[in-house]
Amino acid sequence: LNPDFLRQGRQRQASLTKPAGSLGRLEQLAITLSAQQQRPRPAVDRVRIVVFAADHGVCAEGVSAFPQEVTGQMIANFVNGGAAISVLARHLGAELEVVNLGTAHPLPARDGVVMAEIAPGTANLATAAAMSEEQLQAALSAGRDAVQRAAGAELFIGGEMGIGNTTAAAAVACALLDLAPEVLAGPGTGLDADGLRHKVAVLHRALQRHRDTVAEADQPLPVLASLGGFEVAALAGAFLAAAQTRIPVLVDGFIASVAALAATRLQPGLAEWLHFAHQSAEPGHARVLAALDADPLLRLNMRLGEGSGAAAAVPLLRQACALHNQMASFQDAGISKGQ
Amino acid sequence: LNPDFLRQGRQRQASLTKPAGSLGRLEQLAITLSAQQQRPRPAVDRVRIVVFAADHGVCAEGVSAFPQEVTGQMIANFVNGGAAISVLARHLGAELEVVNLGTAHPLPARDGVVMAEIAPGTANLATAAAMSEEQLQAALSAGRDAVQRAAGAELFIGGEMGIGNTTAAAAVACALLDLAPEVLAGPGTGLDADGLRHKVAVLHRALQRHRDTVAEADQPLPVLASLGGFEVAALAGAFLAAAQTRIPVLVDGFIASVAALAATRLQPGLAEWLHFAHQSAEPGHARVLAALDADPLLRLNMRLGEGSGAAAAVPLLRQACALHNQMASFQDAGISKGQ
Repeated sequence: LNPDFLRQGRQRQASLTKPAGSLGRLEQLAITLSAQQQRPRPAVDRVRIVVFAADHGVCAEGVSAFPQEVTGQMIANFVNGGAAISVLARHLGAELEVVNLGTAHPLPARDGVVMAEIAPGTANLATAAAMSEEQLQAALSAGRDAVQRAAGAELFIGGEMGIGNTTAAAAVACALLDLAPEVLAGPGTGLDADGLRHKVAVLHRALQRHRDTVAEADQPLPVLASLGGFEVAALAGAFLAAAQTRIPVLVDGFIASVAALAATRLQPGLAEWLHFAHQSAEPGHARVLAALDADPLLRLNMRLGEGSGAAAAVPLLRQACALHNQMASFQDAGISKGQ
Repeated sequence: LNPDFLRQGRQRQASLTKPAGSLGRLEQLAITLSAQQQRPRPAVDRVRIVVFAADHGVCAEGVSAFPQEVTGQMIANFVNGGAAISVLARHLGAELEVVNLGTAHPLPARDGVVMAEIAPGTANLATAAAMSEEQLQAALSAGRDAVQRAAGAELFIGGEMGIGNTTAAAAVACALLDLAPEVLAGPGTGLDADGLRHKVAVLHRALQRHRDTVAEADQPLPVLASLGGFEVAALAGAFLAAAQTRIPVLVDGFIASVAALAATRLQPGLAEWLHFAHQSAEPGHARVLAALDADPLLRLNMRLGEGSGAAAAVPLLRQACALHNQMASFQDAGISKGQ
């Protein structure tokens, strides 16, 4: 990040009418946003939220508490305004785009849904590669295209929807971090203890099936193709494209963080563009955040995905900018400085 | 709190298009606000922030990194719009009121400042009672009066300003919790290690001086009179009045939490009306929160006071309400439910 803007930002914070450091993390947020946006007065007024949706062949293994048809039903709910992310986007005055990367039951074209179908969901990652090399490239492209449509946004949030996608994300994280499924699998939308044990067993089978790919964990693309999901790969592509076009990213929960992990393995410089919104209740998230050296802003026990945890943190970024841009300086306000 | 509204709120949350519990703490926030406001669709659109300002005789002991004249200077900064809480209130569309309870150097009347001067600051709590019984009653009244002026508000935030007031708040907390100054004193606006050691020594002297009062820790009023500050007592009075008029309270940092602790000792039922916004970087705050059985929403290392940490958390309450009120139900959206 531009050192001049970082220095200017620190100087400005030191001049404002408050004890040094007393706004805590809001101070560094504003300074970082200033350097990312390369302007002395950062802003996150224009927020772009893109929800990538796709189905997962691994649902054949019975790894989710919800039936697979919910992915398509939720796509409709997103654009009809009834989903959590729809409500939050409206509340924030943020732009919301929904990208359909492929559902098990093909959906009709619908106003407000970008149709970018790659296949009717991935293959079952427990028994085959989740996607081909071409499908992976298509998913990465879909993420890049979404960022191109977001030109001018001051913050990018990537959300996801896909019944079964905590299984895919856990598989990718196991491979990239060389950790066991027991550490990274969680209840997702609501598995009970038996369901979770079964999910762990499915993940063990998947990692065994793809052990040659897993051995090349410094090569995230084969890992994403073998074990990922279309929306996980699209998020990775979107994060990389956002950084290239200098749009700061606010990373959502477990699945978005796994995508961020894969993307930073591809391009370590990406890390400078990522803010981490929250720590999910999904137990694997803490491990993924630790691997990213990330200290998220919120810990509210959320675990919905869709970008909802990131949306919840947007006001903190906006408040950080307002404070940085609008507070009076000691000099202007005629206030005595401390020791 | 009204059990019908609690039950209705839980039922509504269970009907919304998301896995049960997946919005984490935002779900309970909305349910609690619904029961506090006794309406099925809670709202925190109208937010009232009152900053109580006063000076502290204990500044004669050299316990602050800032000179005492800053209290009066900041009162001007609040109403001129340059302070952190001014910026945050504007950003939130919240009402901001400033109440002057008495500064060491008397201030001229100023538009936007409620003049409720009790004395030119408290007496030095290290050598005498900080205030008389009459002064304590006047401070509690000033808090009640501020709530009366807030009629119709959907959320009350009490902020404070007063050079030296972390010393007074720590003294009150030591007395109420029977803990040593070493546990509850912190750097405040920015003491170094020597400064903090001196502050602890002053607190030891104060607690020794008022040991008869301290022995009656179940009597918070004598503790507030001996060791408190006008703004600490006013916050306690305001919190009690807000609960009586059914306005939920969002408690700010260390000083506001000490006031909440004193007020709940007077009236344990108050606890149902309190939301806790953040955990301050001031090290004693964690102990005070634990005594209140409070798990605050934010941990951002803020330590400014003024109500700034509470203001930072207001968007979470608003988002919780928007989600509760506006999300579609499974039935309305035609979405399949999980196991």
